[in-house]
Amino acid sequence: MAEIQTIRAGLVGITGYAGMELARLLAGHPNMRLVMACSRAEAGRRLGEYYPFLEKLPGADVVISVFDAEAAVKQCDVVFLAVPAGTAMKMTPALVEGGVRVVDFSADFRLHDVHVYEEWYRLPHEAPALLPEAVYGLPELNANSVRRARLVANPGCYPTSIILGLYAPLMGGLIEPDGIIADSKSGATGAGRKPGTATLFSEVADTFRAYGLPRHRHTPEIEQEVSAIAGQEVRLSFTPHLVPMNRGILSTIYTRLKKPGTTVEEVYEVCRETWKDSPWVRVLAPGRLPETRFVRGSMFCDIGLVADPRTGRLIILSVIDNLCRGAAGQALANANLMCGMPVDAGLSDSAPLV
Amino acid sequence: MAEIQTIRAGLVGITGYAGMELARLLAGHPNMRLVMACSRAEAGRRLGEYYPFLEKLPGADVVISVFDAEAAVKQCDVVFLAVPAGTAMKMTPALVEGGVRVVDFSADFRLHDVHVYEEWYRLPHEAPALLPEAVYGLPELNANSVRRARLVANPGCYPTSIILGLYAPLMGGLIEPDGIIADSKSGATGAGRKPGTATLFSEVADTFRAYGLPRHRHTPEIEQEVSAIAGQEVRLSFTPHLVPMNRGILSTIYTRLKKPGTTVEEVYEVCRETWKDSPWVRVLAPGRLPETRFVRGSMFCDIGLVADPRTGRLIILSVIDNLCRGAAGQALANANLMCGMPVDAGLSDSAPLV
Amino acid sequence: MAEIQTIRAGLVGITGYAGMELARLLAGHPNMRLVMACSRAEAGRRLGEYYPFLEKLPGADVVISVFDAEAAVKQCDVVFLAVPAGTAMKMTPALVEGGVRVVDFSADFRLHDVHVYEEWYRLPHEAPALLPEAVYGLPELNANSVRRARLVANPGCYPTSIILGLYAPLMGGLIEPDGIIADSKSGATGAGRKPGTATLFSEVADTFRAYGLPRHRHTPEIEQEVSAIAGQEVRLSFTPHLVPMNRGILSTIYTRLKKPGTTVEEVYEVCRETWKDSPWVRVLAPGRLPETRFVRGSMFCDIGLVADPRTGRLIILSVIDNLCRGAAGQALANANLMCGMPVDAGLSDSAPLV
Amino acid sequence: MAEIQTIRAGLVGITGYAGMELARLLAGHPNMRLVMACSRAEAGRRLGEYYPFLEKLPGADVVISVFDAEAAVKQCDVVFLAVPAGTAMKMTPALVEGGVRVVDFSADFRLHDVHVYEEWYRLPHEAPALLPEAVYGLPELNANSVRRARLVANPGCYPTSIILGLYAPLMGGLIEPDGIIADSKSGATGAGRKPGTATLFSEVADTFRAYGLPRHRHTPEIEQEVSAIAGQEVRLSFTPHLVPMNRGILSTIYTRLKKPGTTVEEVYEVCRETWKDSPWVRVLAPGRLPETRFVRGSMFCDIGLVADPRTGRLIILSVIDNLCRGAAGQALANANLMCGMPVDAGLSDSAPLV
Repeated sequence: MAEIQTIRAGLVGITGYAGMELARLLAGHPNMRLVMACSRAEAGRRLGEYYPFLEKLPGADVVISVFDAEAAVKQCDVVFLAVPAGTAMKMTPALVEGGVRVVDFSADFRLHDVHVYEEWYRLPHEAPALLPEAVYGLPELNANSVRRARLVANPGCYPTSIILGLYAPLMGGLIEPDGIIADSKSGATGAGRKPGTATLFSEVADTFRAYGLPRHRHTPEIEQEVSAIAGQEVRLSFTPHLVPMNRGILSTIYTRLKKPGTTVEEVYEVCRETWKDSPWVRVLAPGRLPETRFVRGSMFCDIGLVADPRTGRLIILSVIDNLCRGAAGQALANANLMCGMPVDAGLSDSAPLV
Repeated sequence: MAEIQTIRAGLVGITGYAGMELARLLAGHPNMRLVMACSRAEAGRRLGEYYPFLEKLPGADVVISVFDAEAAVKQCDVVFLAVPAGTAMKMTPALVEGGVRVVDFSADFRLHDVHVYEEWYRLPHEAPALLPEAVYGLPELNANSVRRARLVANPGCYPTSIILGLYAPLMGGLIEPDGIIADSKSGATGAGRKPGTATLFSEVADTFRAYGLPRHRHTPEIEQEVSAIAGQEVRLSFTPHLVPMNRGILSTIYTRLKKPGTTVEEVYEVCRETWKDSPWVRVLAPGRLPETRFVRGSMFCDIGLVADPRTGRLIILSVIDNLCRGAAGQALANANLMCGMPVDAGLSDSAPLV
Repeated sequence: MAEIQTIRAGLVGITGYAGMELARLLAGHPNMRLVMACSRAEAGRRLGEYYPFLEKLPGADVVISVFDAEAAVKQCDVVFLAVPAGTAMKMTPALVEGGVRVVDFSADFRLHDVHVYEEWYRLPHEAPALLPEAVYGLPELNANSVRRARLVANPGCYPTSIILGLYAPLMGGLIEPDGIIADSKSGATGAGRKPGTATLFSEVADTFRAYGLPRHRHTPEIEQEVSAIAGQEVRLSFTPHLVPMNRGILSTIYTRLKKPGTTVEEVYEVCRETWKDSPWVRVLAPGRLPETRFVRGSMFCDIGLVADPRTGRLIILSVIDNLCRGAAGQALANANLMCGMPVDAGLSDSAPLV
Repeated sequence: MAEIQTIRAGLVGITGYAGMELARLLAGHPNMRLVMACSRAEAGRRLGEYYPFLEKLPGADVVISVFDAEAAVKQCDVVFLAVPAGTAMKMTPALVEGGVRVVDFSADFRLHDVHVYEEWYRLPHEAPALLPEAVYGLPELNANSVRRARLVANPGCYPTSIILGLYAPLMGGLIEPDGIIADSKSGATGAGRKPGTATLFSEVADTFRAYGLPRHRHTPEIEQEVSAIAGQEVRLSFTPHLVPMNRGILSTIYTRLKKPGTTVEEVYEVCRETWKDSPWVRVLAPGRLPETRFVRGSMFCDIGLVADPRTGRLIILSVIDNLCRGAAGQALANANLMCGMPVDAGLSDSAPLV
């Protein structure tokens, strides 16, 4: 049997929560090793000094460096870009051309239509030539394309929860594709790690609010992917809220049943059948509702189903961990595929931390 | 000028959060005094011993007693029933007949139709004769009826937020009354103070979940009141969620604009005009969104408005404190009216505790 | 009877939690009105726009201005300085000379010895001439001096909890004044409202840590006041910790009993006698322990007592709200005294918000 | 190379947090498999139904059964007793005699002196004959004894943090063994999962309190082990507090330096040397302080050191995850040793979940 080679991974952007989560996951990966960690602000320090949780674990001794594409090409087989939209598109071309596989956490390569990108992100796109080959990295839907990709656009956290939640009922023709409302709630890590008054502990704890209405940037991404599934253009309402918790997203998705009398059991059968071979999607039995804690730190997407004969609606509750499934874990799954490894390498061993 | 008499108040049910909140409010009321506090389990103790926050304040020296209707009639001008549905209806008739004004925190007298009550609460109603005279105690809408009432059904917490949020746009004819979705989020005091695994700290903190779908008991109450405002029968979707915070409700209400091109500024003008003389309803300027912390411990209902021309929707965000506005504070406002006092006696002095 | 004049109050520094708390309290004060609110960053906005909780309440319409000593002298009877150490000492002299009473929230005038100030705060003192007349504003201990003061140094939050906790047992000669350890725990508002990674929600929630060891700046303030009570120089250990909650301080104070056999009942009698006429200090009966929630938003200091015959120790647990009693509420009490009003004007009406 | 056999594990007591944590860990263990899960209340259900986080993972399909010693002996190589003190001692003898290795989470076999047990736990001991052979399972200190043991008394969570914190300075002769104070703070999972008003979300969130003073049951356990390390009888003060967070313990341990001039660097060298081969004990460099989040879900004990020349004290801050290192993880490490596996099997792979 051929020996499995250790994949050398680079992480650009260590100061955010997604980068931190990736470092956590890589520390336990059997065949991938963090060899490069970049941050302008923290360059020169040991990674373990910056990440106290990583001390005495693999990766702790990497010295943080300033990103340099040439060095990255030499040192890495795969590079994870955990940097803001607008920055990733500047870094990507040189990496891809240098033969490094790239998983981009930002939105820079998620939207097929450059005009939609520029309208919602209010940035000129600097690498539009790469858009056609970038693969939207939802492993359950696009594993084959991801395997062959040089560049994967890692999905947004909210879109991941909503797309996975809608997939089976839409594919099964159970619900109308129009008039959908996704009322989503996210933990505070989703708001990023940049200092700001609005995300201080005492501005988030013991309070609740919506934000970003009605034009949150994840909207076109959700619409693009849901349209592809539905086979028609879909326009929907997406409302994010901030929950006083660290991790987790719950999306409450309101849809209309094509046949108002469809029972929850019928929907459940379709969903269960759709996902029966997917280790990470768990469809809950009728009467059970998902909770974010039961997926904490994992790749699971837990889906609850409620049919309401009074209103003819199917309500789908979809839950993920925003940092693992919604960012770093999904990125790692994509990297696994791109590097010829099992999709769940380094991701399968442990149960959620309840 | 005639001297203002001190109103003698009784509280039945001290072990829950709503009763606790009422004791807090009464301690600062200029003309109402707690003279009776009832609880079978805690009878014989000083109230200040059971409520450590109340020590050295008015009410602390009341000795907890077992409820006795005759004694209540002798000692009290007004009695607050902070007991579960099913219990209140047993206590109410003797009090009302004895000439005591009653404010009932439970749902026992909220629904006009006894059949609807029995269907949703799965209890036979034991005092249906009182239903016709019971007044639904939303002070902004029903102050005149409350003033003359012997029995006030204090509104539920979720219904309060949703009814106040929908009132102006519905009355102004701006939105369709059908197809409404109320996605509500509540702090954990809303789940009550009864011991149970599901509401332990570690089952609620750092997690998020929906519950009670699709038949939460507040649904018919919301539909009854919204139907009355809309002038037609309304059926809507109501989904409650549990937020890891103590107090507060935020309802995200999805409606369809009658004219999809209506701007948020137009809606704002209608809402502001509607509520301009109401000290407790604050309509936020377009672009601003409400947060539960800004109403903490108060009677305020803060309303945010979002018009989405992409989907033709008006999204209304309505925020209250579930214990004060959603229970004890509103009950006190009703009692004030019933006793001939200004509606805001004991409620007007202080700003929210941010 | 002479009419009570309305006192005109100015607040310098609105962007922090202490300033916010003062605005909350002033909105409910019967005889004091906020007439000036200063902030360089927010100048020109209505205060109610910056403080959404204040809308429709007294103070909301004050227009935020840049601090100007001359204007302050004209407009205000009393000025509250909710600005950082180092800034307050620059503002104070002109105000005091202009005849305005000043309550300073910072540490600039708390330490009698200018050298100690300069050693611990690492700032040259710019107004040492005012130090001799500044009164340390703990109303229970220094009310008479406060009444005559032009300048009150409002105590720090940690010192307030520790000094009140130690006062009675030290005065009663029950404990040794040396070897004391104060292990204090504070909610996150105590860390201020300045943006920073360390106080983001996800860096504070679901975690616990100590900070500032072993030289937190409140140490010399505590030692100065405890020395004065003990009648001898006291050196103690003070360790602050950050609790994932918004408000509240609990100090666990370890002392040695002079007579190891002293019972908790004996200590309790001394403490209760000491504080029996103080409306805001509540000594808990033996066997009961204080909790921060029972003092939330109030002036109460709740004190629990534990005698441990195994170790000869008296453990004192002292609890306050860090923003009300530990900052703005205490400042308001001091201002009340300075302006000839009852100490509890605007502070006495309401029970803690549990 | 001989094949590694899969160890069959039984878990008695699934309804508490420690049992839940063990199920999580076993799901990722390479050589140990959960084959039996016992609970009287939940017997007959699939474990995955009771633990939603476990679905689609190893262990989910185990059917919960009522504990039966004979069955356990047949099915299991090792049994974990996650049951209350008093219950474990009834179950243990039959298991041990049947040849099953037992790891007891309770205190039943921790105290060598049966009289001390009976005094502090107020229960007659029913299996005193097993006390002499029970090994106190702190792997860093007692690995060799654990390897040979039939019965391991798994240490308490508070004792683990305090003993590991004190070990190196005591062994190194740097501190006085008397007069020690351990001021500990624990997350709410430490209070157990039994329904009760005191541990409801709204009684723990946004508040802080001490409990169990001055006779918490972990006191004699701490004293027994610290005495053994110090080589003399030690009596200390131990004060636990409840932090509004799920997991984690931080103990702030106050000691007196034998030589008051000892620097923190000197202490650091001794501690680092002591723990340099221990993968799970991380001594932080001088100036750094530990946080509970950096050990979440892991076996790490992070230790911070503060020397205070003003008071001659060494303050030790010791941090663990109360459920993993303080209960289930440590139990698993002990079981690994008892079964001839590496101590970190199933525990080494993953970094803390920050």
